[in-house]
Amino acid sequence: MFALQTPDVAEVAGAVDEVWLLVAAMLVMFMQAGFALVEAGFTRAKNAGNIIMKNFMDFSVGSITYWAFGFALAYGGSTLGGFVAYGDLFFFNDNSRASAWFFQVVFAATAATIVSGAIAGRVKFTSYLIYTPFITGLIYPIVTHWVWNPDGWLAKLGYFDFAGSGVVHLLGGACALAGVIVIGPRIGRFSRDGRSRQIPGHSITLGALGVFILWFGWYGFNAGSTLAAVGADIATPAVTTTLAACGGAIGAMFTAWWVTGKPDVGYTINGVLAGLVGITAGAASIGFGLAIVTGIVAGIIMVGSVMLLERIGLDDPVGAISVHGTAGLWGVLAVALFSSDANVLDQTIGAAAIIGWAFATSFIVFKTIELAVGLRVTPEEERIGLDRSEHGGEAYPEFVFREQLADPRALDPVGSNSHR
Amino acid sequence: MFALQTPDVAEVAGAVDEVWLLVAAMLVMFMQAGFALVEAGFTRAKNAGNIIMKNFMDFSVGSITYWAFGFALAYGGSTLGGFVAYGDLFFFNDNSRASAWFFQVVFAATAATIVSGAIAGRVKFTSYLIYTPFITGLIYPIVTHWVWNPDGWLAKLGYFDFAGSGVVHLLGGACALAGVIVIGPRIGRFSRDGRSRQIPGHSITLGALGVFILWFGWYGFNAGSTLAAVGADIATPAVTTTLAACGGAIGAMFTAWWVTGKPDVGYTINGVLAGLVGITAGAASIGFGLAIVTGIVAGIIMVGSVMLLERIGLDDPVGAISVHGTAGLWGVLAVALFSSDANVLDQTIGAAAIIGWAFATSFIVFKTIELAVGLRVTPEEERIGLDRSEHGGEAYPEFVFREQLADPRALDPVGSNSHR
Amino acid sequence: MFALQTPDVAEVAGAVDEVWLLVAAMLVMFMQAGFALVEAGFTRAKNAGNIIMKNFMDFSVGSITYWAFGFALAYGGSTLGGFVAYGDLFFFNDNSRASAWFFQVVFAATAATIVSGAIAGRVKFTSYLIYTPFITGLIYPIVTHWVWNPDGWLAKLGYFDFAGSGVVHLLGGACALAGVIVIGPRIGRFSRDGRSRQIPGHSITLGALGVFILWFGWYGFNAGSTLAAVGADIATPAVTTTLAACGGAIGAMFTAWWVTGKPDVGYTINGVLAGLVGITAGAASIGFGLAIVTGIVAGIIMVGSVMLLERIGLDDPVGAISVHGTAGLWGVLAVALFSSDANVLDQTIGAAAIIGWAFATSFIVFKTIELAVGLRVTPEEERIGLDRSEHGGEAYPEFVFREQLADPRALDPVGSNSHR
Repeated sequence: MFALQTPDVAEVAGAVDEVWLLVAAMLVMFMQAGFALVEAGFTRAKNAGNIIMKNFMDFSVGSITYWAFGFALAYGGSTLGGFVAYGDLFFFNDNSRASAWFFQVVFAATAATIVSGAIAGRVKFTSYLIYTPFITGLIYPIVTHWVWNPDGWLAKLGYFDFAGSGVVHLLGGACALAGVIVIGPRIGRFSRDGRSRQIPGHSITLGALGVFILWFGWYGFNAGSTLAAVGADIATPAVTTTLAACGGAIGAMFTAWWVTGKPDVGYTINGVLAGLVGITAGAASIGFGLAIVTGIVAGIIMVGSVMLLERIGLDDPVGAISVHGTAGLWGVLAVALFSSDANVLDQTIGAAAIIGWAFATSFIVFKTIELAVGLRVTPEEERIGLDRSEHGGEAYPEFVFREQLADPRALDPVGSNSHR
Repeated sequence: MFALQTPDVAEVAGAVDEVWLLVAAMLVMFMQAGFALVEAGFTRAKNAGNIIMKNFMDFSVGSITYWAFGFALAYGGSTLGGFVAYGDLFFFNDNSRASAWFFQVVFAATAATIVSGAIAGRVKFTSYLIYTPFITGLIYPIVTHWVWNPDGWLAKLGYFDFAGSGVVHLLGGACALAGVIVIGPRIGRFSRDGRSRQIPGHSITLGALGVFILWFGWYGFNAGSTLAAVGADIATPAVTTTLAACGGAIGAMFTAWWVTGKPDVGYTINGVLAGLVGITAGAASIGFGLAIVTGIVAGIIMVGSVMLLERIGLDDPVGAISVHGTAGLWGVLAVALFSSDANVLDQTIGAAAIIGWAFATSFIVFKTIELAVGLRVTPEEERIGLDRSEHGGEAYPEFVFREQLADPRALDPVGSNSHR
Repeated sequence: MFALQTPDVAEVAGAVDEVWLLVAAMLVMFMQAGFALVEAGFTRAKNAGNIIMKNFMDFSVGSITYWAFGFALAYGGSTLGGFVAYGDLFFFNDNSRASAWFFQVVFAATAATIVSGAIAGRVKFTSYLIYTPFITGLIYPIVTHWVWNPDGWLAKLGYFDFAGSGVVHLLGGACALAGVIVIGPRIGRFSRDGRSRQIPGHSITLGALGVFILWFGWYGFNAGSTLAAVGADIATPAVTTTLAACGGAIGAMFTAWWVTGKPDVGYTINGVLAGLVGITAGAASIGFGLAIVTGIVAGIIMVGSVMLLERIGLDDPVGAISVHGTAGLWGVLAVALFSSDANVLDQTIGAAAIIGWAFATSFIVFKTIELAVGLRVTPEEERIGLDRSEHGGEAYPEFVFREQLADPRALDPVGSNSHR
């Protein structure tokens, strides 16, 4: 009704593709809210505002980094041996590629934000601000050049990763693993004799809402990775995504039930995420029945991975390494096992390259920050919570917390709370 | 910009329809988050994690059931006398119908999840897991066959239900009514002399967010029920949906104000939902002014229905029977009263058939479960809350609750909380 | 796949435009949830239900007002000297313009809801119900006639405002300023010697979720303001919107850090909103690098504006005047400074006209209500909270609040709580 003169078919087709890609990108952007809620809900109330800040900042700093050079390193016109691009996209200002940039930047932000939850509760905010642009600006874009730029060495090898089980999630999980190793566990997470002590999250409802938002946004992530709607099958990835998420919930719930004796809420809803991560590489390739299997397996191995990490003394408060790393690795392999679009050898090489690159570069960045300015808050700051120590406020200043009843001094009014 | 060669018009038109139907289905899927929040927010904190689990599971188990046989029973190629389909869609694996399956499965999940809130706070989790696939796999698909499959007997009769005031909401409400009758009220809901005692919800903000999410998702539900965008009027249902929701809020608020003396928050935001349910059957048929009337009436009768159920001793913690059942029945009739697309007789027959089928089958399933494995938790489990008794955790383990101040033992640490 | 016969290109193009506009409008509608959460999260728990009610009601009453006459005053077929329209759109019932109405009504509701947060915690609910339809039905539609109707006097002058930094946000901010002046500060906000005392919000997580939802919805607001997809550049506004939001977060965070010594959460996430407001007028005009600058400046001046208002004794609990008014004014000017689509003189005239009109009319309405029926609750009602005094319930009836520990009478059960 708005067209003043009849447009030609190619123009209309282009508009359909733009609408599809933009809507998908918006949904992926909204996943940031999901990550913020999952991470805040599954951790302590005294750090909730800090989690929120980390999530806003990895997107904010990350987007500007990705505008300045990340996009150029991934998709610039020339390649340095299939390893990194360069060329025309620094300080990006090409309106004709605006939708492509938008879809990519929200993926970059997803990779970055995965780390935030794993190191929650003890990282210095300034150090996080230094760390996060390395992911969105360097670590992630270079891997996307390898895989999603036709000139990339992994693309030429035959590594296949439709929407990024490896490129986004395994990468994020490997970065998170490096962070967790460098920063060490939260105080009280393991007792002196090495036994594990749970630190439950402060709001299962917010965490669950976060998972629903991530699930919703994942349709943009997977179905949008067709990059076009005309001549593309955009519905199949939506169905496989749905079924794998359902399989993940069921696989994780029954595994946790069998191991712990109860259908645990946290494991179950992390199972949804594991199923989503697991199907991401093969969302357009794997049949519907096998998508359920992919999800179930992802849910099961996620639970096993969480328990294994706990046993070896690694503290990942929200399970990010297991949900994104372990299930991401499974997703990279599943597309080879359950479809003809990939083979196990190429997928293994690709996964190894991504893990090696992401872990090594992240480790160096975290270690350098630790030596240069310190990575971790003081024990006292950790005890009173990052919201008060780092940001001068509280997330829930009106509510009474149980540990405050035991120690009424903790009820003292906050000095400089200025949330507005 | 992604099209390499000029596509033909039919291909582009098909892509537009696919984009529209997929976006609509995504929005309807997101309604699951809305239901989870409404149900959790409007009930006790000690059961919030259990509500979450029920909502994730009715979608997860339900989708797989719908993949295995629900879709086949509704839309398989052959019909058994207009009552149930069979044929080609068992263990669904037809990529060319992927968008149709996706749009249908989220409707099936909506029908199922309506029950969850009505029996909140006292149902055994395992019994719920047994019950819910009956809705998504049998009870709901068979009604969709009656109405939305051109071979269905109600379709042939002339029953008209554009987006499912009857097929989805009245059906869900009738199932919820059966569940509420079989399981009985929560402990303390009615005093020994039969007087009603309110059990207020634990978070009005989360409940209200849930209503906003449902409203948002309802645009997919109603406007998406055009099933296509090219040659369809997709905007009219969006406008009627908006106006009816607004009318529902106003109708319910003033009714509650008049009866209780205050503009009650819970009634008002349930009024939004009643307005949405009420317009669903006639979203494409009813004029804009009458859409407002439809919503206002839906809001008024929802409040009356809640009060009536309370008076006869039925305990529906979130008002699901009134919001979905009573307002759904009104919606089925409204399209006959306010448009020429239906007549009152056919609509009455359809509504009676849906109520009879859904209530009878649900009643049998609930009763059978009750006799076989038990439907309800023990009074002690109900008292300490389903989160601890059924799932071994708490939704808000850091916060102090009022009843804990009266009974400090309730502050004892939770044993095996392992939410991650 | 649903098209039975090949449609012509113009029909397909029209469908693409409808899909785009409807999806955009749905996203803008969802911003209502964002506003509700930002306003509830950034204010006291005892008023959260009241905030929710105000938000549902300004949309509900507002939509019906906009259906009855608002749309006609803005876009009716005839103009009274470029000041106000009249003609064919009263009691709107034109299906062919349904998408246009839907996109406009959610903008009207946005303008109205901005006021709600600024006067939170002390306004009588009935008075708010009287006030809010004046914005959606009169104050806002007349300004849209000036600017977005080609016959409007500001449109003819050359004032340029792509998606409404001035028309929506500056207008809403000016109305909020009038309200804040008339109603006065909350009890305890300023001590007797005039010093400011912070009243922190009760849930930073809900507030932050609200900001994420607003950010998500803003893509509909800005990119949807192309009003069509075919032949339009719909991706550029999405990119500028993203970058300005990021710039706003960074600008506000560092400004607050510099002034208060901490990276404050509330300022930072309000910075996102300021960046979004700031780019709204120039989302389609300003280059990507300058979009970042636009956002940074918006974030900085928002913080300055909050501090200035505090110093002069105005109490705006959520910073609405600064976020929408001050940053909106900046947005109107930024499009002149950073693009060739506007000039500073015309933009200044437009901004002055909008401020003058919105402030004067709102001031009259608020003052008239104050004199006629009273605008503000009693001090006692304010102390116990609007949820109990105005709505007879509590938002969080199970939780213990700190001030209740000091005054155990506050733990008395609520009499007539009937939230469902």
